[in-house]
Amino acid sequence: MRTRVTELLGTDLPIVQGGMQWVGRAEMASAVSNAGGLGILTALTQPSPDALRDEIARCRAMTDKPFGVNLTIFPSATPRPYAEYVKVIAESGVKIVETAGRSPAEHLPPLKQAGVKVIHKCTSVRHALTAERLGVDAISIDGFEAAGHPGEDDVGGLILFAAAARKVRIPLIASGGIGDGATMAAALALGAEGINMGTRFCATKEAPIHENIKQALVNAGERDTRLIFRTMRNTARVLSNDISNKVVELENQPGGVAFEDIRHLVSGERGRDALITGEINAGLVWASPVVAMIDDIPTCAELLERIMADCKSSLGKAMTAFDAHIG
Amino acid sequence: MRTRVTELLGTDLPIVQGGMQWVGRAEMASAVSNAGGLGILTALTQPSPDALRDEIARCRAMTDKPFGVNLTIFPSATPRPYAEYVKVIAESGVKIVETAGRSPAEHLPPLKQAGVKVIHKCTSVRHALTAERLGVDAISIDGFEAAGHPGEDDVGGLILFAAAARKVRIPLIASGGIGDGATMAAALALGAEGINMGTRFCATKEAPIHENIKQALVNAGERDTRLIFRTMRNTARVLSNDISNKVVELENQPGGVAFEDIRHLVSGERGRDALITGEINAGLVWASPVVAMIDDIPTCAELLERIMADCKSSLGKAMTAFDAHIG
Repeated sequence: MRTRVTELLGTDLPIVQGGMQWVGRAEMASAVSNAGGLGILTALTQPSPDALRDEIARCRAMTDKPFGVNLTIFPSATPRPYAEYVKVIAESGVKIVETAGRSPAEHLPPLKQAGVKVIHKCTSVRHALTAERLGVDAISIDGFEAAGHPGEDDVGGLILFAAAARKVRIPLIASGGIGDGATMAAALALGAEGINMGTRFCATKEAPIHENIKQALVNAGERDTRLIFRTMRNTARVLSNDISNKVVELENQPGGVAFEDIRHLVSGERGRDALITGEINAGLVWASPVVAMIDDIPTCAELLERIMADCKSSLGKAMTAFDAHIG
Repeated sequence: MRTRVTELLGTDLPIVQGGMQWVGRAEMASAVSNAGGLGILTALTQPSPDALRDEIARCRAMTDKPFGVNLTIFPSATPRPYAEYVKVIAESGVKIVETAGRSPAEHLPPLKQAGVKVIHKCTSVRHALTAERLGVDAISIDGFEAAGHPGEDDVGGLILFAAAARKVRIPLIASGGIGDGATMAAALALGAEGINMGTRFCATKEAPIHENIKQALVNAGERDTRLIFRTMRNTARVLSNDISNKVVELENQPGGVAFEDIRHLVSGERGRDALITGEINAGLVWASPVVAMIDDIPTCAELLERIMADCKSSLGKAMTAFDAHIG
């Protein structure tokens, strides 16, 4: 398949693996890249810029295909040394970075100078247009269905992708709620030239997470995710489990709850532990309602081959009905 | 175009006009039917079963194409005489009814006996499967983007349509968030065999509402609708205006608000007055974020012709990118 996204990324397929905390390691990224998509290492999953340098080298040893690095700028009282992570990326020879969380403005000059192409991930058309003006190379836009941080606008992908495609001129990657051939076909029909998948890649053989978590994604349906941190205007979409249910209960109580009072429940470390130990209630587990379309745990190569075939078949079926009108 | 939906409805196009309180009058329904879609009269917009009989006759005088009647069963302290409305419909010769709001079970026997085909509108896969078991002829499924009552599950059309298409065996009509060729193409790619549009039809020349309201829909973007009555688990999606903003403010105050205390603000009569007088802040105005895709006020015929052409072009563009992979 050829679109402006495959041309930008240098991949066979316009399919990007979402930047995912704890999951975006060399095992995951190399498997997606080897399958024809764009694998993405998550910079902040590594404890330090030096560790990221090592992880990039490890990934390069596992694939000769292009892969990228996600840099998510979190709001935090103790910010990570973002500029140093950027320096490592620029020096590493990685050619694609996905920025997220905040405006990428200050990190663009060193990346551009190193010849790195920047995909900026955001959750609204207005932020996409700002990033386009700043000079990023592509937009990855997250709809309401996205796992992680879908923003506060609550505009579903069906509308957000179409609205963005009408206004954004650089290549557009649709993200959130895409996990099979039909949803990929929809994204392309809405005007995206590529797709981003996170949750779906967690349920693959190569995802470096516990089998129990993969099976939980297979078992879950479209009603099994929850939005938490709404009251803090820092909405996150996670799998329904004891912790997310508790958080919602506390947020809904009269007077709500302060983040400080639930920090021990929702820490990144607990989320990491859930993924590694397979204890589903150990921490927050990011997931999209696209779990409704996850029925098995294939290899990344099997998954992408199937999605491409089903995408073509979904478009073809719609076209056939159309031809009956013309004829 | 031919799908199981056009065959069921006897229409040229698989495009259904949503049942809309105050808007679903003979002017609207006949215009949609004359343009090749299925126009829908809203039963409860008429003050009595006899008035509905007259409205059906008026619509029949305005089109010789098929049209339908929507019967929405509202939760209400003073229920309307639903069985009598059903009797009028069955006697009228109307061949398609859209049921909504609650299980259609008790109304199916008289409708079936009169040879009426029943489309049941619902907001979840599980309710769709229940209606299918009850014997309805098609499902119209409303995603999170729908104006009016999108339910409490908050599953966007991108996922809901795909999840429903995997399980529902009778013809599926996608509803909520569809308003142009690209969104129609997405719905078909997701497995629907027809689409339902409400908000988009309000911004047509023939819609029997004030020009100011149509213009407000043109001016609005994807962030300009609000969800109200969330705290009452009777969520409604409406245009942002003074009244809906006030309702959300009251619902968000500590302790929330009782429906009785806002009834005077949100009555159907005030909504009707807003539509008729064009005073945008006179009452609640139902609208979907699909307003992002509304840029003009065409005739229904112009609208449907454009949507079909753009839908074909959207599918064709996606297919072309695909062919570059095959080649």
